[in-house]
Amino acid sequence: MFRAAVKTLSVATTTSVSRGILLSIRHYCKKTPAKLRVSEAVSGADLGAKVKVQGWVRSVRAQKANLFLHVNDGSSLLSLQVVASSELNDPLLTFGSAVEVTGTLRKSPHQNQPVELEAQQIHVVGECNPVDFPFKIKERHGLEYIRQFPHLRCRTNAFSSLLRIRSEAATAVHSYFKENGFVQIHTPVITSNDCEGAGELFQVEPSGPQNEEEENFFSVPAFLTVSGQLHLEVMSGAFSRVYTFGPTFRAENSQSRRHLAEFYMVEAEVSFTQSLEDLTKVMEDMFRSATEHVLAHCAEDVDLFHKHVTPGHRVTVEAMLKKRFPAITYSEAIDILNRSSEKFAFPTDWGCDLQTEHEKYLVKHCGNIPVFVTDYPYDLKPFYARDNQDHPEHTAAAVDLLVPGVGELCGGSLREERLDLLRARLEEAGLEDTYSWYLDLRRFGSVPHGGFGLGFERYLQCILGVDNIKDVIPFPRFSHSCLL
Amino acid sequence: MFRAAVKTLSVATTTSVSRGILLSIRHYCKKTPAKLRVSEAVSGADLGAKVKVQGWVRSVRAQKANLFLHVNDGSSLLSLQVVASSELNDPLLTFGSAVEVTGTLRKSPHQNQPVELEAQQIHVVGECNPVDFPFKIKERHGLEYIRQFPHLRCRTNAFSSLLRIRSEAATAVHSYFKENGFVQIHTPVITSNDCEGAGELFQVEPSGPQNEEEENFFSVPAFLTVSGQLHLEVMSGAFSRVYTFGPTFRAENSQSRRHLAEFYMVEAEVSFTQSLEDLTKVMEDMFRSATEHVLAHCAEDVDLFHKHVTPGHRVTVEAMLKKRFPAITYSEAIDILNRSSEKFAFPTDWGCDLQTEHEKYLVKHCGNIPVFVTDYPYDLKPFYARDNQDHPEHTAAAVDLLVPGVGELCGGSLREERLDLLRARLEEAGLEDTYSWYLDLRRFGSVPHGGFGLGFERYLQCILGVDNIKDVIPFPRFSHSCLL
Repeated sequence: MFRAAVKTLSVATTTSVSRGILLSIRHYCKKTPAKLRVSEAVSGADLGAKVKVQGWVRSVRAQKANLFLHVNDGSSLLSLQVVASSELNDPLLTFGSAVEVTGTLRKSPHQNQPVELEAQQIHVVGECNPVDFPFKIKERHGLEYIRQFPHLRCRTNAFSSLLRIRSEAATAVHSYFKENGFVQIHTPVITSNDCEGAGELFQVEPSGPQNEEEENFFSVPAFLTVSGQLHLEVMSGAFSRVYTFGPTFRAENSQSRRHLAEFYMVEAEVSFTQSLEDLTKVMEDMFRSATEHVLAHCAEDVDLFHKHVTPGHRVTVEAMLKKRFPAITYSEAIDILNRSSEKFAFPTDWGCDLQTEHEKYLVKHCGNIPVFVTDYPYDLKPFYARDNQDHPEHTAAAVDLLVPGVGELCGGSLREERLDLLRARLEEAGLEDTYSWYLDLRRFGSVPHGGFGLGFERYLQCILGVDNIKDVIPFPRFSHSCLL
Repeated sequence: MFRAAVKTLSVATTTSVSRGILLSIRHYCKKTPAKLRVSEAVSGADLGAKVKVQGWVRSVRAQKANLFLHVNDGSSLLSLQVVASSELNDPLLTFGSAVEVTGTLRKSPHQNQPVELEAQQIHVVGECNPVDFPFKIKERHGLEYIRQFPHLRCRTNAFSSLLRIRSEAATAVHSYFKENGFVQIHTPVITSNDCEGAGELFQVEPSGPQNEEEENFFSVPAFLTVSGQLHLEVMSGAFSRVYTFGPTFRAENSQSRRHLAEFYMVEAEVSFTQSLEDLTKVMEDMFRSATEHVLAHCAEDVDLFHKHVTPGHRVTVEAMLKKRFPAITYSEAIDILNRSSEKFAFPTDWGCDLQTEHEKYLVKHCGNIPVFVTDYPYDLKPFYARDNQDHPEHTAAAVDLLVPGVGELCGGSLREERLDLLRARLEEAGLEDTYSWYLDLRRFGSVPHGGFGLGFERYLQCILGVDNIKDVIPFPRFSHSCLL
């Protein structure tokens, strides 16, 4: 019953084959062929074996005697070349159709595809009308075009490569932290606090008609998290090294190519820090470790981007990995900006926040590699940033990592671990009661600590050179768009 | 400046030490001691080395000549025994205080702690007033008591063990899927569709005063996801094997010990399935693989639960791993329930949903090991479940995994991949337009496929024997509670 919808095309059912061949094929079919993924089949480990491969047709070429297909199942960018007698051709074998091919793996005469599958049977499992299907055979569709089809774009080479890279980069992030003794914490998505202070928050309530007099579901107003930092700080008081990697939210009404309403953040918190260098070391090590992992494990997928989507970007990435990331202070950054001949749209006075144009200039100035900017004006930073108690320029021990093409990739700081200073600042802001639990962390066994967050989509943009953040996440959410 | 808040207690600063000792200690201090984590220190690899260890005091015992501390830094359940001259004692060395100890690692005379740290210096980094601190030295606090302190409970042995296990179990889940060729997909938290159909959803809107005439932020109503299934189905049409592991939400007004408003789900989707067995194999393999990984990598932490929190549970877990999980059909399950002498509160007629009491009975009946129940009544299952087209009992190819103590751990199904059947069912429900994109997945290269979801917290409850789901997640969210 399960196979009822499956159309079977097989040499054995055609009338033009001699009885001898028919029997021999039937006999051969008795041995159940091993099911192989395309990535396994093309590896060449099973030459001569009878196998079954399942996937989607990426190209069809019918010659007089032979039929050539490329079949891809997403296990890698590579497709398997299928060679069949033209008797196995069928009008339903179109670009995008799903097939199941049984045959024998052979050494291919072609150099760039060492293995091909000599087909004995081809089933069309699922049809694909080439007129209705929005992607066309042999056409290279741009990222902007495929973005219109959020439910189908993963079937293009570019976006399937992107998603394999994203998956592998996520693995690399987890591996880095695991190897370095960090405990992974699932910080909550729904929270009653607002880490950044009066940010652009999403609020959460049960859907459906709300009784006006009814209290909140959680008894308090609840929001989508903008950062897991405060929750990680709780945990850093027990585990010394913790991290979280999950979705984060901003209700920003922006359509920028660097912002999303839902994006992924990698956040880490480290106890017993001595200076910002304890953080910048982790940030840089993680960046390097993840990037080297991705380049090593997704070579073909990364190549697709570095060759066809963003030509030349490979050189930028290699330059990033060659040198240690320089660190300059905010004050030095301001000096650099003020000494430059560039006309900036935003002011560059000491005390002003760095804008994207400034960040990009600083990155270029430092040789187009990632650069740390440290010790920002105290008044620019949130209540938890550690007071450097310096004069006359009053700074906090905060750090940003700026990278080519993207600007700010990471932001972090040492956290104010001194109870009296933290309490004074919270009192000033009228937040002492709201954050009494946070003060408790300083009342009981407080230790110097700090942490940072990395925007995972921006990281992918940075290493792949992808211009628009909507092209590095499976289902982008931004103002006026929540497709699927 | 950084160390300004640090109180230093050192033999070198006490007056009672002879000048000779003072000099030798100073000389010794010139060589910067290696910073070790407690788990490294207790491993015994660095006997004789001068090291620095940082952590929190878990016990203090002052004798006439000597001071004994146990210092824990969360790197494992184990604490490091510190032995110091009683001259290094200080009233600030209390349970919960943070310390930095410099000294030499020695073989310990005690059998159950092979290594001890002979302290030369002890800094109290952060004080902890034992009167105000809610946990008391030498007391074993119950899980219910510590739940009152969501910002501090990670500092207890039980909850820190739990969180290390949770982190390791998450690693195990990722490893299982990676080793089996699955691509990880970050399915969105905010979504415009409701996978389960008319569930208890949270709705999302920007916070702050809303202009009545203003349209939605996303132009459409947006909700927190109840399942990543439909998004995974999109991806299974490109990658054959995909999974997601992230937060999921239900606005259920329940205070049960098995439900949370925010919980973690592991969901997988597999293409080119032939029967439900293709899914049950993945579910069982993942369960085994993760559990064996946790037992091997968190032996001490798991032991704490199996010995002190839920005595005897180890036997249950070992029994689960010994045999293959049996599978019975829903119809067989109904027969078993109807033949039993047990009085059930809910009806057990064919067509009724299985309740927790039924699930528990079935698990017991099958030998108190996990059991699959397959082929549920068609009318009980959502529109996407594959029609078995059987008579006279009309069923769908759906499966639940029931486990000891918890009941339903996983739910899954083959998905209706046949365009005509799916469209007919959606039309019947008036949902054809809403799910036209979902129908597209069947229009273009549709393949037989299926998937399942596993409740990660319930999984932890199951292997640890923890009764209340609020005790297996860092920050539980449920009706009337969203602390921190």
